[in-house]
Amino acid sequence: MNPVVINILQNIPKKVPEELFETLFSKGTVKIERIVSQGQCCLINDWYDQVQDEWVILLEGQAQLQFKDDSTPITLNSGDYCLIPAHTKHRVHWTDPEIKTIWLAIHIYPTENDHE
Amino acid sequence: MNPVVINILQNIPKKVPEELFETLFSKGTVKIERIVSQGQCCLINDWYDQVQDEWVILLEGQAQLQFKDDSTPITLNSGDYCLIPAHTKHRVHWTDPEIKTIWLAIHIYPTENDHE
Repeated sequence: MNPVVINILQNIPKKVPEELFETLFSKGTVKIERIVSQGQCCLINDWYDQVQDEWVILLEGQAQLQFKDDSTPITLNSGDYCLIPAHTKHRVHWTDPEIKTIWLAIHIYPTENDHE
Repeated sequence: MNPVVINILQNIPKKVPEELFETLFSKGTVKIERIVSQGQCCLINDWYDQVQDEWVILLEGQAQLQFKDDSTPITLNSGDYCLIPAHTKHRVHWTDPEIKTIWLAIHIYPTENDHE
């Protein structure tokens, strides 16, 4: 039987009152996640501080990420990707309020053998 | 210092005489790879048989995958993703010869604790 094929740009609710997180695949130390944003952002001085590395690509829309070590937010457009290493404090500064922003995030958690 | 942002649809050679594989990130059991195809396909009865799971999404272009357990190739368009579990024999049946096809593949290798 052929594997199931799903389109990542489909099955998106018309309204996204809150940022939508959906796990597409998870195994061992890896989680692949779709995130849908529309206008959401994090509060000023509200920083993610993650134990895992996050490799993230913006597939549609537009957003700005801010990193605590650098005051200038960086803008991500369609196709832009970056690595957010574990414990790199960051926040979503802005997402486009007019259109939906679709992210694909790969979370790579430390193994038991990794030292935090 | 802000993380480096790279666009996955850029830095593509004008001609792609052979399928192009580029590791974007690798750590532990995970490898994130960009693949660029243009017209390449695998020989009939030439099957990939991988030890790792592969979660793959087609970002641009068009391609057909074939799985040994099912004679009908499946067509992937922009945004389509599927999971190819380890040891699921498969081949690239066709990629668009006119335009470049950009894939993002997440390879999840077994850990030492996994039983093959």
